[in-house]
Amino acid sequence: MTGFGTIYGVGLGPGQLDLMSVRADRLVRGAKHIAFFRKAGRAGHARTLAGPLLAEGVIEFAMEYPVTTEIPLSDPRYNQQLSEFYEACCAHIMAIAQDGEDVIVLCEGDPFFYGSFMHIYNRVKDHCPVEVVPAITGMSAAWTATGAPITWGDDVLSVLMGTLDRQTLETQLAQTNAAVIMKIGQNLPKVRQALQDSGHYESAYIVEYAAMENQSVALLSDYDQERAPYFSIIIVHGQGRRP
Amino acid sequence: MTGFGTIYGVGLGPGQLDLMSVRADRLVRGAKHIAFFRKAGRAGHARTLAGPLLAEGVIEFAMEYPVTTEIPLSDPRYNQQLSEFYEACCAHIMAIAQDGEDVIVLCEGDPFFYGSFMHIYNRVKDHCPVEVVPAITGMSAAWTATGAPITWGDDVLSVLMGTLDRQTLETQLAQTNAAVIMKIGQNLPKVRQALQDSGHYESAYIVEYAAMENQSVALLSDYDQERAPYFSIIIVHGQGRRP
Repeated sequence: MTGFGTIYGVGLGPGQLDLMSVRADRLVRGAKHIAFFRKAGRAGHARTLAGPLLAEGVIEFAMEYPVTTEIPLSDPRYNQQLSEFYEACCAHIMAIAQDGEDVIVLCEGDPFFYGSFMHIYNRVKDHCPVEVVPAITGMSAAWTATGAPITWGDDVLSVLMGTLDRQTLETQLAQTNAAVIMKIGQNLPKVRQALQDSGHYESAYIVEYAAMENQSVALLSDYDQERAPYFSIIIVHGQGRRP
Repeated sequence: MTGFGTIYGVGLGPGQLDLMSVRADRLVRGAKHIAFFRKAGRAGHARTLAGPLLAEGVIEFAMEYPVTTEIPLSDPRYNQQLSEFYEACCAHIMAIAQDGEDVIVLCEGDPFFYGSFMHIYNRVKDHCPVEVVPAITGMSAAWTATGAPITWGDDVLSVLMGTLDRQTLETQLAQTNAAVIMKIGQNLPKVRQALQDSGHYESAYIVEYAAMENQSVALLSDYDQERAPYFSIIIVHGQGRRP
């Protein structure tokens, strides 16, 4: 792969410029080519965050998700359409790298933790040099925002998605000390029920927009909404051994 | 608390200078007073990592853990001795803050994720201004080192300590998709057994010294040791939904 550029999957962290790593900051400022995911018609969270750091004349590749709202998740066409989209993105990025130029793929949070970059990574890693820069996760920002440690001593921490079914959420929650629940959105009533049934409801916090300008923290039992913003994270703190 | 300095719990991340956040880098470089934990007779991991960034003339407070090896964990004297140690550390740090000076407490990893800083935090937060700077966790560095995403889609991630008993480890592992196991050390044979009994053994990786100079990655089944270094993390990758 001599003469190839490197494809960097750069984690931008939870959403504040100075919580980006020194390495990410350097790579983003020096970027000649960037690529980033966004929803149709949106600026893209990663692109917006990185905006103030980008050099003049940077060449941008917006990877715009196909609109799949009318196809159910279980329909094979859903996976096929997404797969074709990722293939097209990778072809474009690899062409740049094969031309000898580095490409900085801007990633929200940590690229290898429930991120979209992995769909790029798995398709390009055998064809181009790829480097991944880890980052502060949104959940770290969320537990920091609550002003209390997430885990102590031997605490078990479970990271769960609000998209799981209620029974799985309840079973998992019943057997853990500390929990982080992400992808809340319209799953909030189901998640609330699972927290109640597993005995964690009274001590659960909800953090909206952790580390961002409009961050807010509330006890979930005081949070009077039927759904939560996309960037919401529920936190159940562990109570482990503490001298 | 007018006129007080701020006590900063600054996460230094997994162990490479440029994986520190821009905010942490700025705070450590500008520090007039630093504090850090270390074992008796050691330099201290956090102090060693931060070394190249420290200003000349920085005033250092080494918080040296009392030697407790001859007291069993279950003995109340163990907790009492540690508690007295933390009280004394906090008295010293608060005196500096009450004098109007900031104190930068150097923390390995993320301060609120299984860290020692929380023992300081809980004792000083009602008496002085305190700010916590989250950081890239050692586990993020470990899964990045394996070259594969830890989680996809709806994967459940469990974070477990090798100090848990074998049965708890096995039960937890049997019900998760992805796992991170820390505090391996001499717990390795027990952890290996729990991975075997829960069906995760063949796909488990062990990462020594993630993100550090002497980083090494191996399949656990190829790892021929009876115990592992303190800075070792076992990774079981999730296999979630992927178009």
